[in-house]
Parts: sequence; C-alpha cells; structure tokens
Amino acid sequence: MSKIITIGREFGSGGRELGRRLSQKLEIAYYDQEIIAEISRRTELSEQYIRKMSEKKPVFSFPIHIGRSFHYMQNSPWDLNLSIFREQSAIIREIAEKSDCVIVGRCADDILREKNPFRIFVYADTDSKLERCRQRAEKDEKMTDREILTNIRKIDRNRSDYYNLYTGKNWGDRQNYDLCINTTNLSIERAAGLVADFFRQE
Amino acid sequence: MSKIITIGREFGSGGRELGRRLSQKLEIAYYDQEIIAEISRRTELSEQYIRKMSEKKPVFSFPIHIGRSFHYMQNSPWDLNLSIFREQSAIIREIAEKSDCVIVGRCADDILREKNPFRIFVYADTDSKLERCRQRAEKDEKMTDREILTNIRKIDRNRSDYYNLYTGKNWGDRQNYDLCINTTNLSIERAAGLVADFFRQE
Repeated sequence: MSKIITIGREFGSGGRELGRRLSQKLEIAYYDQEIIAEISRRTELSEQYIRKMSEKKPVFSFPIHIGRSFHYMQNSPWDLNLSIFREQSAIIREIAEKSDCVIVGRCADDILREKNPFRIFVYADTDSKLERCRQRAEKDEKMTDREILTNIRKIDRNRSDYYNLYTGKNWGDRQNYDLCINTTNLSIERAAGLVADFFRQE
Repeated sequence: MSKIITIGREFGSGGRELGRRLSQKLEIAYYDQEIIAEISRRTELSEQYIRKMSEKKPVFSFPIHIGRSFHYMQNSPWDLNLSIFREQSAIIREIAEKSDCVIVGRCADDILREKNPFRIFVYADTDSKLERCRQRAEKDEKMTDREILTNIRKIDRNRSDYYNLYTGKNWGDRQNYDLCINTTNLSIERAAGLVADFFRQE
C-alpha cells in the first residue's frame, strides 16, 4: 500500500503538528506551506497573496449585463481563485506521483481521490483548541480568549467554504475521511504513533 | 491507562466485529448481548422484549388531564424504558469496575463518561454497509437490496433517537468520540489492529 496521507484539520486541533510528526515517524515527505511556495513560483504571485486568496471564502464576480448578453469579467477574483486552485491541484498530483508523503489541507484528499489516499481529519473540542491557540499566541502576540475564539471560528468557516466549493462535499463530514482523530484527550505524539503503527503493520 | 473501550456503530459497518476482534487482540472482556441477558435476569423481562424496547424509539406517554392536575400513567412504556435504561447503566458501570473491556453500543460512552473511556465510532458508506448486510442476510433470509437499505436506515434512526434521548448528545457526532473509523476501505481486521497497537504502545 502506498503511503499517501492527507490531513484535514480544525484550526487549533494540532493537525499540522500531527502531520509533521507522522511524516518523521514514517520517514516520508511532508507538504504544507511548501505548496504555497511552489504555486507562488509558478504563478509569480506572492506567497502572502496566495495564502490570502486560498484562505478566504472565494468571491464570485457578478456577470456584466450588456444588451442581451452576459459577460464575465476577465481576471476577476474568482478567475484568479480558480487559476490558483488549478495550479495547486497540478502540484499536489505531481507531489503524490513522486513519493509517499503527508499533505496537510488544500483539498488534497479530493484532488488525489483516484490514488486512494489515506484521509485523516483531526479535530478537538473548543476548550482544547483555545488552549493550544493560547500557547501558540503567547509567542507571537497577545490575544484575548474572545479574539482567539473568533479567529478559530473564522478560519474554520473559511476552510469549510473553501473545501465545500472546490470538492462539492462537506468539510469535516466523516464520510469523506478514513479516520477522524479527536486530539482533546489524546496527545499529538500518541495520535501520530497510532497512525504510524497502522502503516507499519503492512 | 485503563482499557475501557466503547464502540458506537452504524448498522452494517462491522463495528460489532471490530469490537470482538479488538477484545481478543487485547485479551480483555467483550460485552454486547451479554448486557441484555443481564438486564433480563435482573428485571425478569424477556431478552427479546428488552431488545425490542431498547432498539425502538422510546415512546412518551401523554399525561392524563384530570380536573386541573396532570397525572402521568404508571407503568407506561416510557417508565419501562427508563427502568431498563437505569438497570443497563448500573450493569455497565459494574462491568467497567470489574476489568478492562470493550462495550458495544448502549450509550456506554456516555454512561461511563467519568471513567474517560476510549470512545470509538465505526461507520462506512452505504454501498459498503449494503454489501456487508447482504452477506449476512444470505445466511438467514433472502432480502432485496431495497429491504436491506430500509432496514439499515430504520435501525440507525432508532439508534440515533435512543442515544440522543438518553445522552442529550448527537449520535455519530465526531465530538462525542475519540476516534471515528471508516470501514469502507479498511478491513475490520486492520481497523482492530490499529486500535490494539495504539493500546499496546502504553
């Protein structure tokens, strides 16, 4: 069995860390921000811009009505979103062709569906996510719990909108994953060990 | 860490088999129908009757209005449901006190919440559940796919109603479980191995 592992995750659930540890344990490649960097290289758009575009709810542009015909604006935000998504899909497919790997986010579970990746979704309860974000925030900036919670909800809503739009499926719906892991009572290290052992059974 | 493992499962997903194999791998007790038998012994109701009562959507009895006061019917189906649930809860708590174990269904995840059981939910896509039920049905009786599907939906709806009523939570909602396992592409043997290895890590 090939080890193509995709990880969807709620913000603050530790899904990214789980992915990184899992890739280390299995000694396979790990992709996350690297995909953004590669899109940037290919499209000549800045990484920051791509991150913003692919984390925001995509905006549809209204058609312009001239006489009796409709015209869609060229180079509208939606066109750009779609171009970025196409580039991203191509990169993710190339990555998965090259070697076994862990890919975090970016609808990789759906983009790679023909390769039957092992699809993981990582989640946790609100208190646990708040605590993880608090620890993370201390290093960067001081945020109130209220601000952190608003941020968690906003990011997850965007992830959900993004996933639902590009895959036609529901983000976080268990039917779209092989394994859903709750990190509330489970350390990331143990969760990574659980999945790594599973692949080592082969 | 104690090994108290509860398993919720969609009908036809192989959750019961997973529980049985897991208990064998970990060499711990397994409880499923045994709980019904014990309720029967304690209440002197037949096993068949208890199974019917605890698998059907519980029925609330209407209060009888006499003059200005309301009276609830004694020994109504709802009273009986509640008595059975109380007996069941007591038995499940006794079981979990005695030794490590796997308990399938019966809201055990919620009844044992203070013992922090490891809560698993097993599910699969419809085709996969249909196929598993088909194989099972061949031994007993010939059912059409349509009949099997109707049966799957009915049983899951009852399980959901039962769980939601007695726990105040949503059956199958990932937040209520530590691990949700999709058996569509995963053999029951491998899924049981995954969880067993996880506990052997200790």
